[in-house]
Amino acid sequence: MGQEVKMSILIKNVLLDGRETSIYIEENSIAGIGENSDADETIDGRGMAALPGMINTHSHAAMSLFRGYGDDMKLHEWLEKRIWPIEDRLTEEDVYWGTKLACLEMIKSGTVCFNDMYWHLPGTVRAVEEMGIRAVLSPAFIDNFDEERREKTIKEHTKLLRDVKSNSSGRITPALGPHALYTVSREGLQWCREFADEEDLLIHFHLAETEQENKDCLKKNGKRPVEYLEDIGFLSERLVAAHCNWLNKKDMKILAEHGVKITHNPTSNMKLSTGVMPYPEMRNAGLTVSLGTDGCASNNNLDMFEEMKFAALLQKSAGNDPTAMPAQEAWEAATINGARALGLNSGRIEEGMLADIMLVNLRIPALTPNHNLISNLVYSANGSCVDTVICNGRILMHGRKVKDEDRIMEKANEVAMRLAQDNVFISDRTNS
Amino acid sequence: MGQEVKMSILIKNVLLDGRETSIYIEENSIAGIGENSDADETIDGRGMAALPGMINTHSHAAMSLFRGYGDDMKLHEWLEKRIWPIEDRLTEEDVYWGTKLACLEMIKSGTVCFNDMYWHLPGTVRAVEEMGIRAVLSPAFIDNFDEERREKTIKEHTKLLRDVKSNSSGRITPALGPHALYTVSREGLQWCREFADEEDLLIHFHLAETEQENKDCLKKNGKRPVEYLEDIGFLSERLVAAHCNWLNKKDMKILAEHGVKITHNPTSNMKLSTGVMPYPEMRNAGLTVSLGTDGCASNNNLDMFEEMKFAALLQKSAGNDPTAMPAQEAWEAATINGARALGLNSGRIEEGMLADIMLVNLRIPALTPNHNLISNLVYSANGSCVDTVICNGRILMHGRKVKDEDRIMEKANEVAMRLAQDNVFISDRTNS
Repeated sequence: MGQEVKMSILIKNVLLDGRETSIYIEENSIAGIGENSDADETIDGRGMAALPGMINTHSHAAMSLFRGYGDDMKLHEWLEKRIWPIEDRLTEEDVYWGTKLACLEMIKSGTVCFNDMYWHLPGTVRAVEEMGIRAVLSPAFIDNFDEERREKTIKEHTKLLRDVKSNSSGRITPALGPHALYTVSREGLQWCREFADEEDLLIHFHLAETEQENKDCLKKNGKRPVEYLEDIGFLSERLVAAHCNWLNKKDMKILAEHGVKITHNPTSNMKLSTGVMPYPEMRNAGLTVSLGTDGCASNNNLDMFEEMKFAALLQKSAGNDPTAMPAQEAWEAATINGARALGLNSGRIEEGMLADIMLVNLRIPALTPNHNLISNLVYSANGSCVDTVICNGRILMHGRKVKDEDRIMEKANEVAMRLAQDNVFISDRTNS
Repeated sequence: MGQEVKMSILIKNVLLDGRETSIYIEENSIAGIGENSDADETIDGRGMAALPGMINTHSHAAMSLFRGYGDDMKLHEWLEKRIWPIEDRLTEEDVYWGTKLACLEMIKSGTVCFNDMYWHLPGTVRAVEEMGIRAVLSPAFIDNFDEERREKTIKEHTKLLRDVKSNSSGRITPALGPHALYTVSREGLQWCREFADEEDLLIHFHLAETEQENKDCLKKNGKRPVEYLEDIGFLSERLVAAHCNWLNKKDMKILAEHGVKITHNPTSNMKLSTGVMPYPEMRNAGLTVSLGTDGCASNNNLDMFEEMKFAALLQKSAGNDPTAMPAQEAWEAATINGARALGLNSGRIEEGMLADIMLVNLRIPALTPNHNLISNLVYSANGSCVDTVICNGRILMHGRKVKDEDRIMEKANEVAMRLAQDNVFISDRTNS
């Protein structure tokens, strides 16, 4: 817990699994259900349901600065004209403000933890420390198959990750962030795997997002991405793989054998037309599928309620099967499976688990009538139904108020406007 | 305007098309932009953007009572085990409370007008009159190819529609509601067309929602639905056709020639796996495409912000083209095209147009930064960004508060719980 103040919280008269009870929190954990011990803080839970907070397993938080900056474009045009030029100009301070904004948005929509990959890690770490949310944070590792760049990156990341590991509060865990097969060399990927083993860290990676990625890998390495990654020893239960749209049954079997965790990113995949992850087949292969929003440039928000609905409806629509990904599975993907992917003792409200809790206000039209709370959360509600968020035993939002929110929005908007104004659309980089 | 009180409203210091101005409303219309005349009510618009309220062109409002009552089921199982048995038991009072809840939800998410088809029309009319929203309301016309039922329905609807036409305030317009090709006889459809012509009314209809509907029509009538409907003289510019998932280019051409208006219902289509409407082809054929949520049993909410995002992302994903249905087109489908479909002088904020306006709170994370407001509204925001709703020159919501909201939710929940408790799952009706 480091510098964080130890305290106890009692949530009284709250609905939990359909019955009214109380939840007692001590330090950062749930100490008891149905107990009414005296606490430093008491929350009146009447008219609210207590639920585990959401876990977003794939994000690039500071990209909140680019929300609405480039839409409705082909993937490469979007990256080359919009995203990469503006990212080139980012400073650690910009990333700090972008991450503050992202954390604010996540807290306001019931997310208590996220798995992030981005530039300027220290900026992200500082923002997350201040905002009180839980996170697994990886610096983006890209060597572009250049040995010199790889050696430099390895040196930098070794220091960065060890620094975060030794200095952070218990809420932040560093991780390796090799970007993708088409941006990281074999040696780079292998170093990430070795360093992760040595330091006991997770690895966050983009896998089989587009059909082109598969084709290119097959051409270059004679194998599909998953088989190639198995060959070079990259696969393990440390790996959290994003997207995974273009997998066949053999790929799924290999990933399941190695205990690789999947993060499904349906909104981003739909917006960029990159493909549809074959969820039913992956679930049947025994894979743990969680949910992630991806960055705000391709979503364009961080609302995990919306992500659940997009996930369930995309599977039904693309698979031509209205029974695909039922509400309960979408709900588990956003909570308990996220905890499994990130190795957290959370995702459920039970004694002994981390006190990462949201209280949902049941007195809103989207949750009325209450025939089925999980269905209402997945198919009807959005993040604005969340009244209170507790993370690691601290109250981050109550009555929908978060500390400093106006200032965070004002500063992030300033930073974003400056970056956009400075950006030059380098048209000759298109199709390069 | 009937019993409604005439008044003037001044919205000061509000953002309109990117610049700060004021909007002056007199009686039910926008009387001036940039004017600062004295008014009965003044609204401080600082930090807000003024936008036309949303127009939902396909709903079954009272089905809000069945939100979350049956999900993740095959279409026919869902209808036969869940929806039809519970609908059989509905009273006018139930429909009244269901519609009150739906209107509350619509107002709270920025919708000012909806096009509805359902049972117990007087219950719907009473709810809409009280809630202050604008609506086109049609009683569901189903004869199941039975002459006796048809004659009875024609008699009832003639009276119902004339009653509504002569007694309602200016906000409610009656319309014909022939349900679909598989529930209404040729004679029933033709009567609807004739009566609509006589009384100058719109017609609200489900068209080509499922592939099965097309197949059945082809088998029964030797023609695809659109060609058959053209043959029997059903098509005209009075027709608002919902779903339209299974159209070919010839169908589109015929519909465009007759000036038929389309309402796209992507969330419902995805949830029930009924198909993907070919939007780019329909737009290119010159058809006016608006947006509708469908009923809460198949969506499960009435949030038109969410509907815009589902529309744009479904078109990108299913069409494998990230440039399909750009944000601006989704926005127009939810506003000006809805006004065109329903023949309303609204959908834009301009002098002389109906005062059907929403004020959006720009100081929220999902609208920060503000690189592009329309993109943020379509891809990032949800209905909770709406602070104020004005319909027909009356303030229905301000500071997110709507009159009587707690009581409406409480009563609607009571009604829904009673209906569900009384419902019997008649398993032998399955596959009948």
